[in-house]
Amino acid sequence: MIITVAGAGTWGTALGRILALNGHEVRIWSRFPKETESLSAERKHPNLPGCVIPDSIFFTSDIAEAAAGADYILMAVPSVYTRETAHDFAPYIDEKAIIISAAKGIEKDTLMTLTEVIGDELSRAGKNNTVTAISGPTHAEEVAKDLPTLIVCACEDLEAAKKVQQLFDGTCIRPYVNPDIKGVQICGALKNVEAIAVGIARGLGYGDNTCAAMITRGMEEIRRLGLAMGCREKTFFGLAGIGDLIVTATSLHSRNNKAGYLIGQGRTAEEAAKEVGMVVEGMNALPAAVSLCEQFGMDMPIINAVRSIITEHAKPSDVVTELMNRSLKME
Amino acid sequence: MIITVAGAGTWGTALGRILALNGHEVRIWSRFPKETESLSAERKHPNLPGCVIPDSIFFTSDIAEAAAGADYILMAVPSVYTRETAHDFAPYIDEKAIIISAAKGIEKDTLMTLTEVIGDELSRAGKNNTVTAISGPTHAEEVAKDLPTLIVCACEDLEAAKKVQQLFDGTCIRPYVNPDIKGVQICGALKNVEAIAVGIARGLGYGDNTCAAMITRGMEEIRRLGLAMGCREKTFFGLAGIGDLIVTATSLHSRNNKAGYLIGQGRTAEEAAKEVGMVVEGMNALPAAVSLCEQFGMDMPIINAVRSIITEHAKPSDVVTELMNRSLKME
Repeated sequence: MIITVAGAGTWGTALGRILALNGHEVRIWSRFPKETESLSAERKHPNLPGCVIPDSIFFTSDIAEAAAGADYILMAVPSVYTRETAHDFAPYIDEKAIIISAAKGIEKDTLMTLTEVIGDELSRAGKNNTVTAISGPTHAEEVAKDLPTLIVCACEDLEAAKKVQQLFDGTCIRPYVNPDIKGVQICGALKNVEAIAVGIARGLGYGDNTCAAMITRGMEEIRRLGLAMGCREKTFFGLAGIGDLIVTATSLHSRNNKAGYLIGQGRTAEEAAKEVGMVVEGMNALPAAVSLCEQFGMDMPIINAVRSIITEHAKPSDVVTELMNRSLKME
Repeated sequence: MIITVAGAGTWGTALGRILALNGHEVRIWSRFPKETESLSAERKHPNLPGCVIPDSIFFTSDIAEAAAGADYILMAVPSVYTRETAHDFAPYIDEKAIIISAAKGIEKDTLMTLTEVIGDELSRAGKNNTVTAISGPTHAEEVAKDLPTLIVCACEDLEAAKKVQQLFDGTCIRPYVNPDIKGVQICGALKNVEAIAVGIARGLGYGDNTCAAMITRGMEEIRRLGLAMGCREKTFFGLAGIGDLIVTATSLHSRNNKAGYLIGQGRTAEEAAKEVGMVVEGMNALPAAVSLCEQFGMDMPIINAVRSIITEHAKPSDVVTELMNRSLKME
């Protein structure tokens, strides 16, 4: 198969490498010629130390060249660039190509999932390709080291999801199929906000009990929202739900967790984002998460706590004390 | 209220301290006079560094003295001593006292939960007390440091569960009520086996992706078993379910996780248990877990993997490779 990866960040590069090792023809596109030239020449990614990029991967910053004849287009740009990238690719995408969305986020103004954003841009270009999503507990740094990783391939069209499953299946990746593409993406976006909350608790000096409880209650509030949105309950307790939240909220690789930790330690959100250096998707997803709470009339105390710390500069320790002092509940 | 804690281990001591700080009259009983004398004199527990035991707590190794007039009996001995301790306490328990089971395990030969074991011993003594259970992501070491902790108080009799909830509610502990006492205890026992599996993966050098996936799939197999046993699905995704598994499988405090890690690094199960030093509840729960799988005809690949490593001395890396190579599935 010919697979074009749009985005030469850590995730795009790690996935491209896996697909190349699985025997596919892989092209990685980036908007920045400097980046593709450097990756093509050096065969290593600055944020994936120790990972060798296979010689068979072709790098380009030319969309027409990248997309021509591709069987799959894997979108792996940060969520805020998904619409723009889909828009630019749309004219060049083969009518039979399947699109795979690998980023995690919700568009702030439209509250669309990223597959909806991609579908929207395709339909404006008169295209009707099947759009799938992949998700799960998948730090790029570990996939780049061939550490065993389980992913979810999501699409209402199960045949398409199974094709994507076959594409990734290999010694390091074990893919599962999930028909609930909306639930998978709601989890993927909102867990980043929850992971900031867990990082804040950690930064305040709280322990493993507190963090495990926040992860559990965090997924519970996402589940309630997801059910109101018509998603499949099982998704929230699966790899793309609790699995991904666990890895994001406990791993040192997680930018969201690290940003939260720095905030808990006393930095402002801006300082924390700057110190992390890479995109903090949870901060990008926060406005959409807050809008979804409001639109569906949901009580989401942890997301609300992150909102008040980040946008209203509430003191983290006060906010956590307030969470602990809510009225006693049934589980 | 007068509360008697049976068991002077880390969990009994940490809970006794919290209850004393909440203003209750607390007595801690241990079978070993040397232990109660030392705790009473030194006001510190050897495995809870930095924790001061309030002067108001009374220590005794005399059951009649411990149990007389108590409103609550909190059972916090290791699971394998629960029956014996309940048997010895039964004659002295006030007819209105509520029992709270705080240990995690399933009796190997009868496959009873610990509240069923306690109820069985009470009924043999002609007693009919209400038996409740507490659970959740609750490392004693952290509760002893007043770090925020969420617990679950479980009982079919919701009034009794709410009384226990009120008892523990305080600045550090936030208790939730759950009517599904069986599900709470199935989770509490089986998550220790799953945590050994995650520890093994960590010991083999796998990363956060692998561990998060194993936690997710581990709770999924416990959920399937629990549903077959008539438990409430929500329990498995709550504090006593996934919450407790997360803390057990990721925290450095966890003996089960540490035992698994050592096995993954090449030690035998016996060597690992010896090195951990304290009770490894997951190893005690393994035979019961395996029997439950068989009795309910469940496919529980991760528990089965732990079984083959611990009881058949299979090579951990082979077992994990086999797990990754199972047929592709829907989530």
